[in-house]
Amino acid sequence: MVSQEEKRVSSRSIFHGHIMDVEVADVRLPNGQMTTREIVRHAPAVAILAIDDHQQMLLMRQWRAAVDQATLEIPAGKVDQRDGDARDAAIRELNEETRLVADRLTKVSSFYSSVGFSDEYMTLYLARGLTAVAKQLPQDVDENLELVKVTLEQALELIKSGQICDAKTIMAIYYWQTLSLRGDK
Amino acid sequence: MVSQEEKRVSSRSIFHGHIMDVEVADVRLPNGQMTTREIVRHAPAVAILAIDDHQQMLLMRQWRAAVDQATLEIPAGKVDQRDGDARDAAIRELNEETRLVADRLTKVSSFYSSVGFSDEYMTLYLARGLTAVAKQLPQDVDENLELVKVTLEQALELIKSGQICDAKTIMAIYYWQTLSLRGDK
Repeated sequence: MVSQEEKRVSSRSIFHGHIMDVEVADVRLPNGQMTTREIVRHAPAVAILAIDDHQQMLLMRQWRAAVDQATLEIPAGKVDQRDGDARDAAIRELNEETRLVADRLTKVSSFYSSVGFSDEYMTLYLARGLTAVAKQLPQDVDENLELVKVTLEQALELIKSGQICDAKTIMAIYYWQTLSLRGDK
Repeated sequence: MVSQEEKRVSSRSIFHGHIMDVEVADVRLPNGQMTTREIVRHAPAVAILAIDDHQQMLLMRQWRAAVDQATLEIPAGKVDQRDGDARDAAIRELNEETRLVADRLTKVSSFYSSVGFSDEYMTLYLARGLTAVAKQLPQDVDENLELVKVTLEQALELIKSGQICDAKTIMAIYYWQTLSLRGDK
């Protein structure tokens, strides 16, 4: 295999924001030519496919400024200073967004959400055995969330109709479908 | 359902790049409070789950500056001026990256890749009945791509080991697994 590595020659910071930093890097390609790469730096994140005992998944309806519309998404959020690791973040987000705690929380997969321009790294968890939390954690002041529950069949219809249009949520639904088809309730 | 809409009061452009624009918007929340939203504007994109007659999927190994490593991803790219629509872009990218044309090209789903901070909207296609193209389109000068073929079982192992760590690719593999479990070859 020929090396594909791009050597970073220099980079400059364009923007330092609350949820992202933006930089432009000058890189040398394997053929010696120079080009630039625009990169969004973002905190790692978690998302949770939470399935209750009635075989319904938990979705959050929330406004997303980037697309100027309300979306339906699985519970998710950034890993932050309060969290020891991604798993802690998943437990905290599930509490904050759904007021539930999972008896069984297992990692599904980890991935870069938009590897062409961002380093956001997300871990998807499967949460089952859901019960009400003993202690509700405070919610983010600028988040307005509405809980929606759907079956697998409804979720697949919502993808088809375009009402579910969030990548991590669609990934989670396809994964859930593989579990269902394998008879793993 | 209570309105969750955030009213955009003003916004300013932070960066105008080759593949993205960055803006910061001031928005009014439903409770009247003001907050800011940081948004990455990105062209729409396509990705292709291409499965050959040996039941192997086509992956591209390429360097990704944002994560400073080589990744394994399904063929993908931006919808650009040459394309009439997303379907045209999928046909073009499949030609450029794999030198193949699909006898059957069907839409799987459309989604925002990172709806928390970006408007990148991607459409995933399923391509089957693959044969060599009659006319090879020119490739991007700063792309170095290596074609890799894997079975479904290998793809699932590569997710587990972390060697496949791209969201759209993992989504496509879970979707492929649903087809396989349903006996749809």
